[in-house]
Amino acid sequence: MASNDLEGKRVVVALGGNALGPDPKRQLELLEKTSEHLAHMVKEGINVVVTHGNGPQVGVINEAFEVASKQKDSQVQMMPLVDCDAMSQGYIGAQLTCQLMNQFRQQAIMRSVIDVPTHVTVDADDPAFKDYEKPIGAFMTEAEAKAFAKETGFKVREDSGRGWRRVVPSPVPQGIVELEPIRQLMEDGCIVVAAGGGGIPVMLEDGQYKAVDAIIDKDLTSAILAWKLEAHMLVILTAVEKAYLNFGKPTQKAIDTMTVDEAREYISQGQFAPGSMLPKVEACIKFVEAHPGGRALITSLGHAAEGLRGETGTMITA
Amino acid sequence: MASNDLEGKRVVVALGGNALGPDPKRQLELLEKTSEHLAHMVKEGINVVVTHGNGPQVGVINEAFEVASKQKDSQVQMMPLVDCDAMSQGYIGAQLTCQLMNQFRQQAIMRSVIDVPTHVTVDADDPAFKDYEKPIGAFMTEAEAKAFAKETGFKVREDSGRGWRRVVPSPVPQGIVELEPIRQLMEDGCIVVAAGGGGIPVMLEDGQYKAVDAIIDKDLTSAILAWKLEAHMLVILTAVEKAYLNFGKPTQKAIDTMTVDEAREYISQGQFAPGSMLPKVEACIKFVEAHPGGRALITSLGHAAEGLRGETGTMITA
Repeated sequence: MASNDLEGKRVVVALGGNALGPDPKRQLELLEKTSEHLAHMVKEGINVVVTHGNGPQVGVINEAFEVASKQKDSQVQMMPLVDCDAMSQGYIGAQLTCQLMNQFRQQAIMRSVIDVPTHVTVDADDPAFKDYEKPIGAFMTEAEAKAFAKETGFKVREDSGRGWRRVVPSPVPQGIVELEPIRQLMEDGCIVVAAGGGGIPVMLEDGQYKAVDAIIDKDLTSAILAWKLEAHMLVILTAVEKAYLNFGKPTQKAIDTMTVDEAREYISQGQFAPGSMLPKVEACIKFVEAHPGGRALITSLGHAAEGLRGETGTMITA
Repeated sequence: MASNDLEGKRVVVALGGNALGPDPKRQLELLEKTSEHLAHMVKEGINVVVTHGNGPQVGVINEAFEVASKQKDSQVQMMPLVDCDAMSQGYIGAQLTCQLMNQFRQQAIMRSVIDVPTHVTVDADDPAFKDYEKPIGAFMTEAEAKAFAKETGFKVREDSGRGWRRVVPSPVPQGIVELEPIRQLMEDGCIVVAAGGGGIPVMLEDGQYKAVDAIIDKDLTSAILAWKLEAHMLVILTAVEKAYLNFGKPTQKAIDTMTVDEAREYISQGQFAPGSMLPKVEACIKFVEAHPGGRALITSLGHAAEGLRGETGTMITA
């Protein structure tokens, strides 16, 4: 794909955890570099909608309220996870829009940037609400965790031999509540930051939105957003340039392109690590199946520009 | 003003602290009532842009990080105030948009709602950065406060005999960074929640936005937003139906309308309480002076609909 073919195309770019890092002090520095790469895409005339993770950030916010609420002299109360989620969108989104605006000013790009805290619907019947084990918050001893569970009504479990933690559901995202304003902004030429951390989970009860304490996979939400925006491409940025077969073995082989059928076959062979490459490949399948005209790309931030030109990365097609 | 005269008019509504209350547990409940009133305005065909305060919320967020960061076993670090500010916009904005959407669903209003975390520019030469005393965060003993100041470089002072606290600058807002997308969204028919808490303060340094730890008066920011959007009306909602002369005295008299000159005269007489009615009147003056075609209204949430029809409240005109 020649570079000028991208002019006017809609691309949803999902930033991975490595675009922000786990350390809030380094986050701003990393976002500067990330924004530089994103600005290069925008300069090619692409209408970019950016999504991002929030794992470490929502963890830190939740932990701050959890720790502070346990102090005797403190007036601070526990904050619902869904509110911590909205806070993380405001906070990461503001830093990212600010860095993007600075890059645009440096590179003389006349585009507005806007952050849209985004609600995402989940299904009350999602099996994730019955059986869940996504850990969040501070580590506790077993006794502390059980007292905490009794006091708050939260579920807790032992986490990989490192102590006990609260666990929360991770339901499948169903729809993007702010879809129309996001589409409108994109069509007006704005660069939109949206659906951070997979979105703020809400469910419909008697026709009314109700906030839910849960965590949504950001790549799956990005796939739905890309589908609903009829994006030409979903780009999932991660730590590696490509997905691999036999990853880490002497027979390791990079995947340049794969169809949905091939991707499913590789998944059944256990080629992609759960919690790492697997959810990204699954999100790509979801997007190209729902929107067969679109293509999905998995690559690293540093290779994104080449990847968009079809020169590197792993491309998933219908 | 007849009700149908409002159709298609642009109105910036600034929600006061009483629209959210100081208690996060009651906040959602209050926002439901607030949203019901706002939905009535929207139903009249008004293009509403909503701004809101964040005093108690940014205070609680800042305090959670401050308290948690002081615990020995905690990994949580102090969070810059500017990031707490962005968090409060994400959190309050998400709750408010959700409640507005629910009201719209109940009242069959076909309008989108969107929250826009908003950056506001301040001037590096603002005298507020030299001499400031706006308190924030947890109360400390004098010794604790001095140790805290030494460790963090923050300024602290004694607060009204209740203990020592950190103090931060409160510079004058100069411009709305996300103005164009906000205008575009409004023109596309969206109800926009913007500039919460007076906005996320940034200053321009060598052509680049730089975040600043400060707190901006939300009514002044609302005045600038209303001016730049060329709003027909700026509505500042507070606890009382009208502003008064000789407030609380036997000679107390409600003000129905006042010109900028009259308002200035009343200010020189000390008629309006600093930190309460005074900044609201000043914001109204700022708006109608900058945009003489516009009018500013001070009233309570419950009287907003009547006030918009010219039936109550205190109206300020050029």
